[in-house]
Amino acid sequence: MNELNFFGLTDFIRNALSEDIGTGDITTITTIDKNKRAHGRYIAKEDGILCGIDIVAAVYREVDPSIELIRHFNDGDKIKKGDVIAEVKGNAVNLLTGERVGLNLLQHMSGIATRTSEAISAVAGTNAKIADTRKMTPGLRVLEKYAVRCGGGTNHRFNLADGILIKDNHIVAAGSITNAVKSARKNAPHTLKIEVEVETIEQLNEALDAGADIIMLDNMSVEMMSEAVKIVNGRAVLEASGNMGDRNLAEVASSGVDLISIGALTHSVRALDISLKFVIE
Amino acid sequence: MNELNFFGLTDFIRNALSEDIGTGDITTITTIDKNKRAHGRYIAKEDGILCGIDIVAAVYREVDPSIELIRHFNDGDKIKKGDVIAEVKGNAVNLLTGERVGLNLLQHMSGIATRTSEAISAVAGTNAKIADTRKMTPGLRVLEKYAVRCGGGTNHRFNLADGILIKDNHIVAAGSITNAVKSARKNAPHTLKIEVEVETIEQLNEALDAGADIIMLDNMSVEMMSEAVKIVNGRAVLEASGNMGDRNLAEVASSGVDLISIGALTHSVRALDISLKFVIE
Amino acid sequence: MNELNFFGLTDFIRNALSEDIGTGDITTITTIDKNKRAHGRYIAKEDGILCGIDIVAAVYREVDPSIELIRHFNDGDKIKKGDVIAEVKGNAVNLLTGERVGLNLLQHMSGIATRTSEAISAVAGTNAKIADTRKMTPGLRVLEKYAVRCGGGTNHRFNLADGILIKDNHIVAAGSITNAVKSARKNAPHTLKIEVEVETIEQLNEALDAGADIIMLDNMSVEMMSEAVKIVNGRAVLEASGNMGDRNLAEVASSGVDLISIGALTHSVRALDISLKFVIE
Amino acid sequence: MNELNFFGLTDFIRNALSEDIGTGDITTITTIDKNKRAHGRYIAKEDGILCGIDIVAAVYREVDPSIELIRHFNDGDKIKKGDVIAEVKGNAVNLLTGERVGLNLLQHMSGIATRTSEAISAVAGTNAKIADTRKMTPGLRVLEKYAVRCGGGTNHRFNLADGILIKDNHIVAAGSITNAVKSARKNAPHTLKIEVEVETIEQLNEALDAGADIIMLDNMSVEMMSEAVKIVNGRAVLEASGNMGDRNLAEVASSGVDLISIGALTHSVRALDISLKFVIE
Amino acid sequence: MNELNFFGLTDFIRNALSEDIGTGDITTITTIDKNKRAHGRYIAKEDGILCGIDIVAAVYREVDPSIELIRHFNDGDKIKKGDVIAEVKGNAVNLLTGERVGLNLLQHMSGIATRTSEAISAVAGTNAKIADTRKMTPGLRVLEKYAVRCGGGTNHRFNLADGILIKDNHIVAAGSITNAVKSARKNAPHTLKIEVEVETIEQLNEALDAGADIIMLDNMSVEMMSEAVKIVNGRAVLEASGNMGDRNLAEVASSGVDLISIGALTHSVRALDISLKFVIE
Amino acid sequence: MNELNFFGLTDFIRNALSEDIGTGDITTITTIDKNKRAHGRYIAKEDGILCGIDIVAAVYREVDPSIELIRHFNDGDKIKKGDVIAEVKGNAVNLLTGERVGLNLLQHMSGIATRTSEAISAVAGTNAKIADTRKMTPGLRVLEKYAVRCGGGTNHRFNLADGILIKDNHIVAAGSITNAVKSARKNAPHTLKIEVEVETIEQLNEALDAGADIIMLDNMSVEMMSEAVKIVNGRAVLEASGNMGDRNLAEVASSGVDLISIGALTHSVRALDISLKFVIE
Repeated sequence: MNELNFFGLTDFIRNALSEDIGTGDITTITTIDKNKRAHGRYIAKEDGILCGIDIVAAVYREVDPSIELIRHFNDGDKIKKGDVIAEVKGNAVNLLTGERVGLNLLQHMSGIATRTSEAISAVAGTNAKIADTRKMTPGLRVLEKYAVRCGGGTNHRFNLADGILIKDNHIVAAGSITNAVKSARKNAPHTLKIEVEVETIEQLNEALDAGADIIMLDNMSVEMMSEAVKIVNGRAVLEASGNMGDRNLAEVASSGVDLISIGALTHSVRALDISLKFVIE
Repeated sequence: MNELNFFGLTDFIRNALSEDIGTGDITTITTIDKNKRAHGRYIAKEDGILCGIDIVAAVYREVDPSIELIRHFNDGDKIKKGDVIAEVKGNAVNLLTGERVGLNLLQHMSGIATRTSEAISAVAGTNAKIADTRKMTPGLRVLEKYAVRCGGGTNHRFNLADGILIKDNHIVAAGSITNAVKSARKNAPHTLKIEVEVETIEQLNEALDAGADIIMLDNMSVEMMSEAVKIVNGRAVLEASGNMGDRNLAEVASSGVDLISIGALTHSVRALDISLKFVIE
Repeated sequence: MNELNFFGLTDFIRNALSEDIGTGDITTITTIDKNKRAHGRYIAKEDGILCGIDIVAAVYREVDPSIELIRHFNDGDKIKKGDVIAEVKGNAVNLLTGERVGLNLLQHMSGIATRTSEAISAVAGTNAKIADTRKMTPGLRVLEKYAVRCGGGTNHRFNLADGILIKDNHIVAAGSITNAVKSARKNAPHTLKIEVEVETIEQLNEALDAGADIIMLDNMSVEMMSEAVKIVNGRAVLEASGNMGDRNLAEVASSGVDLISIGALTHSVRALDISLKFVIE
Repeated sequence: MNELNFFGLTDFIRNALSEDIGTGDITTITTIDKNKRAHGRYIAKEDGILCGIDIVAAVYREVDPSIELIRHFNDGDKIKKGDVIAEVKGNAVNLLTGERVGLNLLQHMSGIATRTSEAISAVAGTNAKIADTRKMTPGLRVLEKYAVRCGGGTNHRFNLADGILIKDNHIVAAGSITNAVKSARKNAPHTLKIEVEVETIEQLNEALDAGADIIMLDNMSVEMMSEAVKIVNGRAVLEASGNMGDRNLAEVASSGVDLISIGALTHSVRALDISLKFVIE
Repeated sequence: MNELNFFGLTDFIRNALSEDIGTGDITTITTIDKNKRAHGRYIAKEDGILCGIDIVAAVYREVDPSIELIRHFNDGDKIKKGDVIAEVKGNAVNLLTGERVGLNLLQHMSGIATRTSEAISAVAGTNAKIADTRKMTPGLRVLEKYAVRCGGGTNHRFNLADGILIKDNHIVAAGSITNAVKSARKNAPHTLKIEVEVETIEQLNEALDAGADIIMLDNMSVEMMSEAVKIVNGRAVLEASGNMGDRNLAEVASSGVDLISIGALTHSVRALDISLKFVIE
Repeated sequence: MNELNFFGLTDFIRNALSEDIGTGDITTITTIDKNKRAHGRYIAKEDGILCGIDIVAAVYREVDPSIELIRHFNDGDKIKKGDVIAEVKGNAVNLLTGERVGLNLLQHMSGIATRTSEAISAVAGTNAKIADTRKMTPGLRVLEKYAVRCGGGTNHRFNLADGILIKDNHIVAAGSITNAVKSARKNAPHTLKIEVEVETIEQLNEALDAGADIIMLDNMSVEMMSEAVKIVNGRAVLEASGNMGDRNLAEVASSGVDLISIGALTHSVRALDISLKFVIE
């Protein structure tokens, strides 16, 4: 087990391979001698942050454990256009058969890491951390959370069970922020912090008084966020949120918030361009 | 069973819910009375093509079969900013608990359908069809292929077993295009067509002579594609391919090719902005 | 979905039925006419707290959805020797076939709820809550956590991912309590509280200074716990732990700790005696 | 495959690990260097019979195959307070991450083996064997049956398919013991023995005449059991049953019955106290 | 649950449908309007015993629960060439999509039932029962055992766990028949009978003396079997075995054996010819 | 991965072993010392084509990876009565425990390969290939398709998704062959060929005109097939079909058709007689 490992990883990879290969790569089986060997190189076609090379290794282990992967870069490393990221060697049929699944994951995860890294660069010089959200691709959460970390970002709660986040609907249903926080504190495990989403300074004050540990500032102007930072003055963690993918992150960060959470990091991923070129031996 | 249904759909949805909910939505459980009811509306925040509303229904069926979904638009429909796409009614706790999984899929699939539709608009007036590729998110292929169809696109082979596509490596390994086609024809099921990827006019001619049913023109200039169209003259289907996400599609289509396949339709998806607003009753 | 539901519940029940029934209840199939009906009554053979009647219902739904269960008591209710807890009616073969799995779970869960309730009675008049631990039966955690709640208890973290608990090994590895807390705060999601296990007053002071949110007092005497309560004075939650199943809980609670966590609630369960008597009609 | 192995063992262990670890041991990951090594010792905190050390090995193989387990005692061995049962060595993060699942199973199984062994000691000097029942924890039957064997006990039928046990309801439904035995003999596989549960000497005689291979004496006094032994005189196996966990086993055995089956061996397990102490290297 | 039901039936059917349908019946989807309805009739093309009509119903329930199946014959019934076995009505696309899986199972199971019934006819007038073996198709054992019962046959043990059958290798390994029987009796659950396979009259006598409950006569001549029947004289069940698919069953039965077990019933199945003709409405 | 491997193979084998072994081979465990070793030989009891020896190896790998299999023949080889096909060596208990599952598959697959090879011999001297159908055993399709290839046969489409075959019902529903072909061509992936089933020369002409790639001649006389061959004259592949298991294949092939597809190859399999004899060491 390493940080990327999770208990469903093998099943996830088998499912992905089964989906892409079906009952066999009929083209490769019928045109390439089953004893041929090949040698491939993963090449960056643009600059970015690498993420997923261990997944590529895991994919090939599932396809054919005798395939050898030589890493020249590791997850989290900066890569530049033209860099040879890694090399693979082994049976040609199996290398070709597993190519696409590995590449799809590598490009997707590197895309997320790269975008996270860009967001962090945008807020350089401030104290703001960049965090993810639950706006992720179903089935890939462990991988996408890992990609955010590879890009230098911070993970928000993993799912609805391991963090309390009181939003507008909970507030309406509970009658008030005060009631909602009280009710959560009474009934939820004592090991979880309580976060409250607010839209106004009035709500902010109520959340602070109720003892919120974290306060999410939803869709606020930079001015309003700066005011919030002054009011809170360290008594709670402040998180800026709401279409942050379209905001000027440097400005947002300049308000002094502790965290900026960005759904677009994972709901609107642009794959990083990486190619795999083989030489048949 | 309908077109969207597949044998793993229920497992896919349960897995996605389990991933997002874990052992329970602790915030909602501790702040909202378990007998409260709510009413929500899915609202388009930008123009696009709707895709995935049946998946939303399936997600909620899994969470709580008594939740009611009223569709105002169906998959494949054009939606405009401000449109109320659908409404959901039922138990408030369950509506909130299932919200994110449904929304993540709806925005992702609508993003793909919208981008496909834009590509089709770009080639309007030509005979070119827009097709997808295998550059898809692992685990979501059935859903992403469906989204491409909702956007008006054409599906390429589903996986490596149900289509023969002879690429550069197969050609090198087999010795020549001619050998590769011959070998595939001899050993593959007689029910599959044979597609060959070519980069030059010389290769095109060899593929034609070898009897390829479909020829993929890889990364060619518009001029070269036009020449290929003239040479082939209907004897094979012609498919333009290679970074088509960054090309001028109208120009490519004007060459007379039959199909343009675009990896970016699915490897670089921008989620369509759709919100879900609840009223707690 | 209700509080007891979880995404693996159906699989859990099917697995349990498959384990107990194998390829069929050969005795019942060969001796009882398949059209006979029966009527059964669940009767308490000793006093306790009921837990698991919804699981019994779920078990029978899996065996035969036409079986009817009439509840006279609900989960969390006190039951006395002789009480008729519930009645079941339906096909005799199916009632007998599913009998044991339902009963095994009902007696196990009621045993946990009863013991939790006894612990709560023992600390009556103090502010101490009774909490569970991770010393649970593999595969039954959701059910056992629920049984603790039915008995009036409080759940500790569900698993290793949704709570930070720094123990002796972490402290040794990190160099000091201060280092361990600092490292956890820096690298873990900001949504989780930090708990530190201490064995001495010196460690307690270091944990407090490091900013621990919760402090676990491990195997301390009542005097030492009282001193800890005075020192902390509300700045952190205090949890008494360590073989609490063998301690005088009233004494422990009198020290003023906020929580007492007891592994024996779930690692040494005595089944509550409940019988199921059928009348074949 | 050995005696403890079964076809779902790996899935069982993965499920248990996933349940306890979730998406990762956040405390250990954030406080312990991923390259640290540790060394742990399993120490008996009370006397008993060891059971489950192979399961501990299997758990760690799943977590990290490079972890080394050195056994000082094997399943079925007597252990005394203070004995070092086994040692584990390897990566510190992985050792801590897998600790609880292994320990929970080891203590539970050793608890069962110990109680079984105590029952056998209680009937020493008689011919009575100690047997288990189907009153077991759902999902753990193979492990609990194995623990009974480790304690020196005898397994009763594994499930409803591999043994015929005619109880009161079957007798009522079939009209009489004679009818029930006849019907079972006619319709069940000829490879299974027929056991009948009786409450009176009259029923005993009818069961004997009907040709029962095994007769279960339900909740009888020692005198009645002695009489039954005389009447049967070796023509059938006699099994004493019914709340045997609360009976004087020596007395029961003195009646001359062949077997005593005890539900409490597995429905009311007290975990054997075993600790795991690590040294971080 | 009925006799045919087993806990993996739904998974078995889903797997079979997934195997046959893949990602969709592309021919039917592209040529038949999705709202068309159809009506089909299952027609016997030869005489035989029907088996599997409930499986057909279960297959269609999985494909489309609104499809209606009207039975004219039930499992175990004799059918004659030309009989309309059942009718199905519903959505045309779904009826065609599920056709083959249902038919494959129906023809296979009816083939087994028919062959079993023929064997029973061959031994009419004797006391010999016809039994199956473990020479079955992997994955279909519950269905094939059920088909044998539908044909009037008797089931032998289901698997290696629920019956003791001591064969030549066990005898060699244990040293003698006497040792093997003694060892099995001592260590196996007391609920199972002991069967011994013998090839000579000398072995028969040893097995009888050792107390075997059932004796399998392997590949004996009719004369030898008759002698065995005389010697045993009711003290054990006698089973004739060994290539019984190629023997004259009437002769074998005339020896007086109790059972004849025939591997060919299930290892060499000829599908019963049954067609399904649709009318598109 | 080799040609026989598929993503569910391990699960298939585990399921088959679990089905046959249940909770353990009680006879072998109780009569054979767990340290004994044995040596077995697979012997052909009749002539045929071997298929499945790799599956036997995979079965034993699952049971006990230390068991050694020495092949004397490979899949696709001709074997004669008396040939020693392969030898197995290893732990006696595990060899006996896994015996039946391996043998059941080996005999079934070799039965299919043998029958396929016989069909090919029957058409020797013609151009006709022998093909399979979808009339296969649920759950075994990959294995049965492989067995057909081992016997020298050609595989038809794997499932309903990877080949278009327009049959009578599709024609009726679409209005005409022309409509059905047009509709399939428009809506199905361009990578699949279109096959049409015809019963008359008139239909044949319509299918040809519509542009069918493959035409299936259903239940035609040899004369009619010969006429079809003349008319088509190479413009489409011609496949003879319909109860071909009962036809004179040499005659059918003499008509000049390209393929003969035979359901009986797989729906009515006679197991090839192969025995496994052990020597206990």
